[in-house]
Amino acid sequence: MADQHAPSPVDAPPSMVPALRWDEPPEGPVLVLLDQTRLPVEEVELVCTDVPALVGAIRTLAVRGAPLLGIAGAYGVALAAARGFDVDDAAQSLAGARPTAVNLGYGVRRALEAYRRALDASGDLASAAAGALAEARRLHREDAEGSAAMGAAGLALLDELLPGGNHRILTHCNTGALVSGGDGTAFAVALAAHRAGRLRRLWVDETRPLLQGARLTAYEAARNGMAYTLLTDSAAGSLFAAGEVDAVLIGADRIAADGSVANKVGSYPLAVLARYHHVPFVVVAPTTTIDPDTADGASIEVEQRPGQEVTEVMAPQTAGAEVGGALPVAPLGTQAYNPAFDITPPELVTALVTEHGALSPVTGSGIADLCARSRPATIG
Amino acid sequence: MADQHAPSPVDAPPSMVPALRWDEPPEGPVLVLLDQTRLPVEEVELVCTDVPALVGAIRTLAVRGAPLLGIAGAYGVALAAARGFDVDDAAQSLAGARPTAVNLGYGVRRALEAYRRALDASGDLASAAAGALAEARRLHREDAEGSAAMGAAGLALLDELLPGGNHRILTHCNTGALVSGGDGTAFAVALAAHRAGRLRRLWVDETRPLLQGARLTAYEAARNGMAYTLLTDSAAGSLFAAGEVDAVLIGADRIAADGSVANKVGSYPLAVLARYHHVPFVVVAPTTTIDPDTADGASIEVEQRPGQEVTEVMAPQTAGAEVGGALPVAPLGTQAYNPAFDITPPELVTALVTEHGALSPVTGSGIADLCARSRPATIG
Repeated sequence: MADQHAPSPVDAPPSMVPALRWDEPPEGPVLVLLDQTRLPVEEVELVCTDVPALVGAIRTLAVRGAPLLGIAGAYGVALAAARGFDVDDAAQSLAGARPTAVNLGYGVRRALEAYRRALDASGDLASAAAGALAEARRLHREDAEGSAAMGAAGLALLDELLPGGNHRILTHCNTGALVSGGDGTAFAVALAAHRAGRLRRLWVDETRPLLQGARLTAYEAARNGMAYTLLTDSAAGSLFAAGEVDAVLIGADRIAADGSVANKVGSYPLAVLARYHHVPFVVVAPTTTIDPDTADGASIEVEQRPGQEVTEVMAPQTAGAEVGGALPVAPLGTQAYNPAFDITPPELVTALVTEHGALSPVTGSGIADLCARSRPATIG
Repeated sequence: MADQHAPSPVDAPPSMVPALRWDEPPEGPVLVLLDQTRLPVEEVELVCTDVPALVGAIRTLAVRGAPLLGIAGAYGVALAAARGFDVDDAAQSLAGARPTAVNLGYGVRRALEAYRRALDASGDLASAAAGALAEARRLHREDAEGSAAMGAAGLALLDELLPGGNHRILTHCNTGALVSGGDGTAFAVALAAHRAGRLRRLWVDETRPLLQGARLTAYEAARNGMAYTLLTDSAAGSLFAAGEVDAVLIGADRIAADGSVANKVGSYPLAVLARYHHVPFVVVAPTTTIDPDTADGASIEVEQRPGQEVTEVMAPQTAGAEVGGALPVAPLGTQAYNPAFDITPPELVTALVTEHGALSPVTGSGIADLCARSRPATIG
């Protein structure tokens, strides 16, 4: 199936279809998305010629992942501008497509502000559209540069923690190019190790309930030619006991001021296992993930997701069946406890790798220093 | 769907279809099995009128679980004898249906020996058949009595560890009436707490990859009217962190002479989490599970199961689709690490509950004492 699609040479690992790309065919500019709901069964690209199509893709999770949503939002504004649609309407519609996705609103706002600045300066719609597109490309590039910096800093940390290379890394959920403008966060470190010839194995947690590890991380690992092995989340215990894990690398949804890390459910058990087995537990996330207004782990409200994610198994969508099938695996009426993420306290985190390097140990003052270094650049 | 079947009043909780029952309709004796491959979607009984049908049911896992397989094997010999088939052939065929199931061979052997003794003593085939059936019923009753003893001893231990009752118990895999002639092992303790009005909640790990928790334990909990909640295996970490788990109860596949416990993969991470959170971790298993010839955990060879169990998700079978569908959830060619069980060292086990009561701490000498008390009765 993959062979039906020519791999893009731009901004993507050798043989990976990019999660998102701007294209300008003769018919007019388009935003092309890799439809993530079809992975890993099929690589299908969605071509968005207008904002409603992009909003639909965001709503159905064809495009997902915090940084990538920000980039998609920015390009969406640029698309509306380039195609001559009402840019304010487009921005509003995009920002509301997933109300809780902070990055989406951020990306939309950046492109919209760039559009307005260019319009004010030139009075010319074409220049304004070019301004929006340049800002989207800038956000995209910043994200890729952040990924590259995290990859390099994470690999340097691994080499320091585990001299001799040949790393066996355990990861959870999906943190690669499918959620990012670059190589991602934790996955970017594993990929950097792979490219440097120092990755012995990437252990991929399947990541129940939505199986992002099996569906997406395994896909990215395969596409990048990495040595990887999939496992059920609770088989990680056996790997630790067998001495088969040199380090755990995960991303983060949010980091509190004290260094507590909210990430995909299943991260905290890995942190406890890593501590018990004296294995480094490393969080890789851009400084934008730090929320200085959240004092500590207890202040983070944990979203409870629908029980059906646990009581039913969703089949990946295929071209033959537009809606992936939901198969019941528990008795009718079964209630499920289904937190979206869990909280790992800073004392279980060996290091936090950001685009500014590694922070270890993870302390409130270290986090505050990182924020002080990053905020002006991030907001500016 | 459940309403299509009259619940059996014999040897089963109020509204649960028994996993296995001997019946004697006018057409001749039969062994009736609850087809576990159809759970939890449908309660379908398989009526076995001969040994090939029973062998087929064993092979397709319609009947499963170590103690229950032993009972099924014994009844299978009784069925062949009662129906006038070649009993030695039947015994050989049954014992070979799942070669690694030790209990299956044990049950077959007990019924076969009883058959021969009765035949030698009476010279009469009808008496011999009655002898085999009596032995099958005895094995069935012994297992039920063992379950009852473990349930009572486990509940006494819980009440001692956690005065005040109102227990919130976390369990893994399936250890109830579907694998036993009685209420099972760990599940029997939770059920005893429920019947005594002292179960606040049963937390049910879904138990990847085969989802025995979601499919079978949730079914048993629902059928028994217990307060239960299903969760993904790695969401257990959040429960511990929130202080929502008072005790972990699991069964065992095998217990080594030093007290190391081999059980369904995912047990060991729970033991580590329980230790980190100072929560009792209790193993419930009959003394027949102890293998004194296995010195320690390192001596237990861990079976690796097919990767497809992880890379594909199996839908429960339904009447409309005889073969449950296998849905790929990982890229084609993905390798999976899929150990059948993991090993929990004795220092992480708070107590071992057997039909003789609770052993705590779990030590090699304590295990040896248990074996000394149990072997004569078990073998005799």
